[in-house]
Amino acid sequence: MPHIALGNDLPGITGLMAHRPDTAGPLGDLANALLRAPSSLDPGERELIAAYVSRLNDTEFCASSHGAFAAAQLAGGQQLVRAVLADPATAPVSGRLRALLNVAAEVQGSARPVSDRTIAAARAEGADDTDLHDTVLIAAAFCMYNRYVSGLATELPKDDEYYRHSARRIVADGYRGGIVRGD
Amino acid sequence: MPHIALGNDLPGITGLMAHRPDTAGPLGDLANALLRAPSSLDPGERELIAAYVSRLNDTEFCASSHGAFAAAQLAGGQQLVRAVLADPATAPVSGRLRALLNVAAEVQGSARPVSDRTIAAARAEGADDTDLHDTVLIAAAFCMYNRYVSGLATELPKDDEYYRHSARRIVADGYRGGIVRGD
Repeated sequence: MPHIALGNDLPGITGLMAHRPDTAGPLGDLANALLRAPSSLDPGERELIAAYVSRLNDTEFCASSHGAFAAAQLAGGQQLVRAVLADPATAPVSGRLRALLNVAAEVQGSARPVSDRTIAAARAEGADDTDLHDTVLIAAAFCMYNRYVSGLATELPKDDEYYRHSARRIVADGYRGGIVRGD
Repeated sequence: MPHIALGNDLPGITGLMAHRPDTAGPLGDLANALLRAPSSLDPGERELIAAYVSRLNDTEFCASSHGAFAAAQLAGGQQLVRAVLADPATAPVSGRLRALLNVAAEVQGSARPVSDRTIAAARAEGADDTDLHDTVLIAAAFCMYNRYVSGLATELPKDDEYYRHSARRIVADGYRGGIVRGD
């Protein structure tokens, strides 16, 4: 049961956002800017970074949601997502994405500078300043979203179809309209 | 030296926000919603939570910035802020704020549910759902801002007058206009 009365039974962040539209607005806009706006990383790659950080933080709702959003936008689908969440070192992704997942893991671990070695390894695989900026900020942002969702002890959806349904909405509409509605 | 070329020499998050206005917009709007908009917690109390989480995360730029913003808006000024950052258990704050700082510390520690005991202790001191929601989300958000600022290895300002100058701008203008400009 959530720590606060939400006045709705929506799972995860959707219940929090319906409860507090004042903070839902900027949280949705930020998700849209990070995961949907034009960038050097594909939306599916960015969702994969979000899902991986959420898995490292052990926030089931966000890991499953963003895993489904990644699967819906990557050629490898759910099988690729499962492989990355299990172990990026052996998953069939590009060297650049694998190196960026290592950057994301360092950001998840603490608020310390990413190590020079990890930055250099990403650059050696072709990552540029935009890739590095976006990866760090996505990983940092999911350290926020995960803490918000888990910290307030929100509920999980009743079944996994929820995540696939959400994925169709997010791919079609993005986060501004999509994440707040429970339909 | 920052891990990416910012094209400016502004310290901390201001250099990142000037470099990337696309993400600066929602990041500034979120700070405004969390720290400046009407809420059950005073702006100074919310800044104190932000500063305390930043201190726990060891992100000097954010701890000093939000410490200065708290000091500018609390009767106890810089002395109170120093006492809270050193040890909330002995600082001269209300029982409610002390209990909420304990909630914030749990959120900073991991993306797990805040313990029932810590929530109950805050409620016993008079904290309501809005206080708890805002404390969890402020603490979560500073786990993002801190990772963004530290992860990309941004610079510190040259002297502490910078923080007092920023405080005057933030108190006058809020985050939307204030944090992006380097003047």
